[in-house]
Amino acid sequence: MSDNPLHRLLNPLSIATVGSGNNIMKMGTMHALSIIKDGFAGAYYPIHPKEEKVLGRRAYPSVADLPEVPDLALLVVPSDQVAGLLEDFGKKGTQSAIIITAGFGEIGDEGGRMQERLNEISRTYGIRFLGPNCMGIINSEISLNTTVIPYPYGPGSLGFASQSGTYVTQSIPYLGKKGIRFSKAISVGNSANITITDALEYLGQDDQTRAISLYIEGIRDIRRFIDMARRVTPVKPVLAQYVGGSGAGARSSMSHTGSMAAPDHLYEGMFRQAGVIRADTIEELYHYGNMLAVQPRLKGRRIAVLTNSGGPGSAIANALEKGGLTVPEFSPELRQKIRPLIPPHAPSGNPVDLTFHMDFDALPVNIPSLVFDSGEVDGLIMHGIMRSGFIKAGYSHFRDVFNGAPVETILNMMPDNVKKITSISRFGKPVCVSSFFDRDDDCTAAYEDHGIPVFDAPEKAAGAMVCMLRYTEILERKPWKPVTIPRTPQAADKLAAGCRARGQGNMDEHESKLFLKSWGIPVTEELIARDEDKAASGADTVGYPLVIKACAGDILHKTGAGLIYLNQKSREEAVASFRNIQKAAGRRVPVILYRMVKGDREFVAGIVRTPGFGPSVMFGLGGILTEALGDAVFRPAPLSEDDAVEMIWNIRSRTLLGPFRGMPEVNVTSLARMLHRLSLIPLAHPEVSEIDINPVIIEGAEPVAVDALVVFDGP
Amino acid sequence: MSDNPLHRLLNPLSIATVGSGNNIMKMGTMHALSIIKDGFAGAYYPIHPKEEKVLGRRAYPSVADLPEVPDLALLVVPSDQVAGLLEDFGKKGTQSAIIITAGFGEIGDEGGRMQERLNEISRTYGIRFLGPNCMGIINSEISLNTTVIPYPYGPGSLGFASQSGTYVTQSIPYLGKKGIRFSKAISVGNSANITITDALEYLGQDDQTRAISLYIEGIRDIRRFIDMARRVTPVKPVLAQYVGGSGAGARSSMSHTGSMAAPDHLYEGMFRQAGVIRADTIEELYHYGNMLAVQPRLKGRRIAVLTNSGGPGSAIANALEKGGLTVPEFSPELRQKIRPLIPPHAPSGNPVDLTFHMDFDALPVNIPSLVFDSGEVDGLIMHGIMRSGFIKAGYSHFRDVFNGAPVETILNMMPDNVKKITSISRFGKPVCVSSFFDRDDDCTAAYEDHGIPVFDAPEKAAGAMVCMLRYTEILERKPWKPVTIPRTPQAADKLAAGCRARGQGNMDEHESKLFLKSWGIPVTEELIARDEDKAASGADTVGYPLVIKACAGDILHKTGAGLIYLNQKSREEAVASFRNIQKAAGRRVPVILYRMVKGDREFVAGIVRTPGFGPSVMFGLGGILTEALGDAVFRPAPLSEDDAVEMIWNIRSRTLLGPFRGMPEVNVTSLARMLHRLSLIPLAHPEVSEIDINPVIIEGAEPVAVDALVVFDGP
Repeated sequence: MSDNPLHRLLNPLSIATVGSGNNIMKMGTMHALSIIKDGFAGAYYPIHPKEEKVLGRRAYPSVADLPEVPDLALLVVPSDQVAGLLEDFGKKGTQSAIIITAGFGEIGDEGGRMQERLNEISRTYGIRFLGPNCMGIINSEISLNTTVIPYPYGPGSLGFASQSGTYVTQSIPYLGKKGIRFSKAISVGNSANITITDALEYLGQDDQTRAISLYIEGIRDIRRFIDMARRVTPVKPVLAQYVGGSGAGARSSMSHTGSMAAPDHLYEGMFRQAGVIRADTIEELYHYGNMLAVQPRLKGRRIAVLTNSGGPGSAIANALEKGGLTVPEFSPELRQKIRPLIPPHAPSGNPVDLTFHMDFDALPVNIPSLVFDSGEVDGLIMHGIMRSGFIKAGYSHFRDVFNGAPVETILNMMPDNVKKITSISRFGKPVCVSSFFDRDDDCTAAYEDHGIPVFDAPEKAAGAMVCMLRYTEILERKPWKPVTIPRTPQAADKLAAGCRARGQGNMDEHESKLFLKSWGIPVTEELIARDEDKAASGADTVGYPLVIKACAGDILHKTGAGLIYLNQKSREEAVASFRNIQKAAGRRVPVILYRMVKGDREFVAGIVRTPGFGPSVMFGLGGILTEALGDAVFRPAPLSEDDAVEMIWNIRSRTLLGPFRGMPEVNVTSLARMLHRLSLIPLAHPEVSEIDINPVIIEGAEPVAVDALVVFDGP
Repeated sequence: MSDNPLHRLLNPLSIATVGSGNNIMKMGTMHALSIIKDGFAGAYYPIHPKEEKVLGRRAYPSVADLPEVPDLALLVVPSDQVAGLLEDFGKKGTQSAIIITAGFGEIGDEGGRMQERLNEISRTYGIRFLGPNCMGIINSEISLNTTVIPYPYGPGSLGFASQSGTYVTQSIPYLGKKGIRFSKAISVGNSANITITDALEYLGQDDQTRAISLYIEGIRDIRRFIDMARRVTPVKPVLAQYVGGSGAGARSSMSHTGSMAAPDHLYEGMFRQAGVIRADTIEELYHYGNMLAVQPRLKGRRIAVLTNSGGPGSAIANALEKGGLTVPEFSPELRQKIRPLIPPHAPSGNPVDLTFHMDFDALPVNIPSLVFDSGEVDGLIMHGIMRSGFIKAGYSHFRDVFNGAPVETILNMMPDNVKKITSISRFGKPVCVSSFFDRDDDCTAAYEDHGIPVFDAPEKAAGAMVCMLRYTEILERKPWKPVTIPRTPQAADKLAAGCRARGQGNMDEHESKLFLKSWGIPVTEELIARDEDKAASGADTVGYPLVIKACAGDILHKTGAGLIYLNQKSREEAVASFRNIQKAAGRRVPVILYRMVKGDREFVAGIVRTPGFGPSVMFGLGGILTEALGDAVFRPAPLSEDDAVEMIWNIRSRTLLGPFRGMPEVNVTSLARMLHRLSLIPLAHPEVSEIDINPVIIEGAEPVAVDALVVFDGP
């Protein structure tokens, strides 16, 4: 176990609160009620300046008066009192605090300074805190709930950490009705001290937690988050929602938790690299997270669909296939075994559609057994299993037929298969259910209480199974090895220092390529020529056909300006072009000469830096369509070669990587090595703000950087 | 009003059923119970061979014995009895029937023949029927429900038609709990006689219906559907889900309703052309359909977000912006008015985040009024309005504080703002709510009962508002004019007939271009030459630089085979190339010569035919990346020029249509005219099975077909 501060914070033996009283209309009181009423077995000490008792518990006038050092302090007081109280607890020896109070980093500079003061106190006294601007925590293992809503559902296995407090408070009754139970829930608020990365680490280590869901508005310690996620995701699945990617989302996130957001495509790439599964909505975050938490791993791609209704069957099959799973037709042997259990004309091939039938065991028990025993599938989705919900829904019509008997009497007349249906878990393969009936139906309740998720729409059940596949794919990745940043090549340092000393804002093309080459990136082998004679002899040295280009740090756009000549087939052509370039430039300008690189496949690669996010590698489709198609993907730097391979295959136009128009498939290993090496540069060269390599041409199978630009930070 | 058969079928004065008895375990009995118990005021006649009474109503031994001609017959009998009974009702004079029984077109050839027999009876006696293999109908206006589940929710405004019976039966209790009410619901089953297109027409004309949702597995009368949708969608919104687009979806649809499915991209294009909004899930179909049915139109793009919690606020803002709406920052004036109503540090700019507060009118009443009065927004989403649900959720904690008072007592102590909150409708602008509290909460129930939809996740509320925008965009389209197919050009007829007479399976390139030209499509002006002299003189006539190409019906792939030479700059070059082509072909082969068309922008266009769907136009990105990028869109033929403009702008790489690398923007009018004319061909030439134009090069601003192939249907 690490020294993660949440181990202590989530497992206190004693808790003190400040701001809880006897006025039920105050938030502090509601927090205290949850501690008192939800089963926490440790000691609880309300601190109150006036009351002798708070909610029936003896109250203490100040921190100093407490009879023991509380393990955890919870503060719900005006923002200007927080620092003083945190210090009091620090002095007392308390090591963990939850600061509910808002009005810190999220309100601007003044709040930011107050928040920094809290961190100073934390460092001074070794007291670690959650928040400020949060809603507290739930540890279902020890019945500890510090939020403002009761959590009466018992232990669960979904670990949840959120930059929104609402998602661990307002939503609790909703989650109860959906049968979703937290192992631990952690509202991190502004993440000023204990961050969402700490929560990820803690939940990754927590035995009770089988899957982790994260609600994210902007991560403060992004590099640590990535490394942490890479450690956790091979052990248990991590799902994340990110909402800061749009302008309005970023503005809202800033004013909500003071989070610095970054464009969506950067987070998207970061999640992919880190093995984090992306959730698009809070519903997916809860429900798919729950599926991952309660069901066994999916070990293949073949899914059976059993239904009593064709529409949901079609919808499930369609959504599964769109998500990358298969709905294989059953073998004739299996169909023959299923046939006697379903009506004569009902489809038996997968989906199996029982249509209207009165055998209550066929759909949930007997056919699933046949299907799993066959070995023909790796997972199962069922739709249309219902019992008491159906009777209740129809009761107004049935009542007279049963001479006014109460609904329970009618229910008792029906075969009770509810105990049997959950035995499906014995096959050890993932199963979930689609039903329009909620926990009012005893089948739905039985499934949920036995860890078989029930979704209120067929597409959601299919989506949950697709999410299982996403995690299977993550487990199939090569083991992660942290990337070590090698020593900076002397040539690179010298080049950069030289350019900076000369006051250049960027390297010229030749310098840029030499710089990249020193980092091991394949570039055009080129000569520089400053006069006609050198151009002529250089041309012969390089060989034909060749390219001749103006080269100066202040010349960024050569095409169309008469500063570049391609496909030069002779010394004479090259010399003429040299003269033309001088004319077009209107001054003496050096040229570079290199053998023309031929290939129909062009890509782009580069480095960008984003405030609050750090350096990223870009890779995408190049050539004249680059901007029109916007087919580019991003990954946080550095990348291992394995990371780079995944990144390369992530572009939409990935078929270009295979054999193409008589050319061999791209050597993706070479291309990945190129991106890996490129990704090291921003970490070794803090002075480099941006790199563009455009195009990277694939010559035969091998990538070559044909034009490049290295830009420095400010002057 | 049209002579749509559903007018009669959904509004009967009397109903007879066959297959309903006193055994509650039989489906027929459940159908009868719904007719009897849900408030239908007309006459009901059960037909039963043995019973004197069915469910307390006098039963009749046969159709002939009925005391009057029933307006509607409902059949739930074994499939071999259906035809005979339908004929009996036809003879009696009944004009409408619902055939619940399955085992017809969906089970294969034998069932198909039985289904055809039903249509013969329909034609003979003028009796129109719904189904077979359906679940009946609901007409909430006259309390008529023929499904197997009670529908006790009263009149609604969402019209629903479905190829799945489950979506108008099993889901009824779910819909009740979500506050969604049908105007009419129509289960069309196999659509053998009355189709989903008839349902669309009927719902389009029905005054009670304000929006239409369709669940589709495959449309039988696709051309009529498109024309119908174009008529209906300017009047009221139509939403559709289609699940037949994948292999498994298509297989399942076929065995479910005998529906012939087509690939997803064809339905996608058809929906867009017809102005139908696509729903991806049944939840969207219900909930977004309901939003469109109960809320006023969205007349702009500016949305306000009011919340008591930052997370949902960020999620809503982010999802709105991703969907094309804006979340504008409020003016200083408006913020100043809002400021006193919210806590000191709470964000007031949009989203407005009230955070924890005890003013129960601020979020649902007072701030919305300020916001709408300002004129700064066109719609509103609120999150976090709750009352009784919150108290109930917290009751286990509050009880002792209130000395064990019952939950109702505590509720009565709270300010009751529930009557006030629905007055928000008076602004006549679309509003919806996000809440984790269902109808157990009196605020949620009040909203739903007053036509203000409540969604159980923030992203769903945002999605519903985005769906409103989709409909606004559809209303902004130019008025639809049906496309008339002009007389076939004589030249086209003659060319096609000539090729067919010669036994050609396709036209050669030159013929193909002449054929397209006769239809008004711009092609390269070219000469054909069969010997060297003609090639030489032809080259001079065409002008340089030119292209010379082998041209024969059996030569389809010229690139790389030495059969095409580009950029020929002189007569000598052209003649040499002519010789090379003869050598490469290994036989005497004619060549075509045309002036080389120059332009960096290449597109493709074409015609495909799909069984069960008919002819479609394809348009996409061309050039060497065509297949790699797969950026193509499809629309059913024919297209008006307006249709074609929309289609052209639908490609991903649409920025290529603007000014590009020094070239002017594409003349989209010319390109649209080209696609319009292309789209007429398959309707005029049933013998043409496929057309490929690849590439269409944009020269300057104008499109030219540079290579083309016209293929005929089998020999």
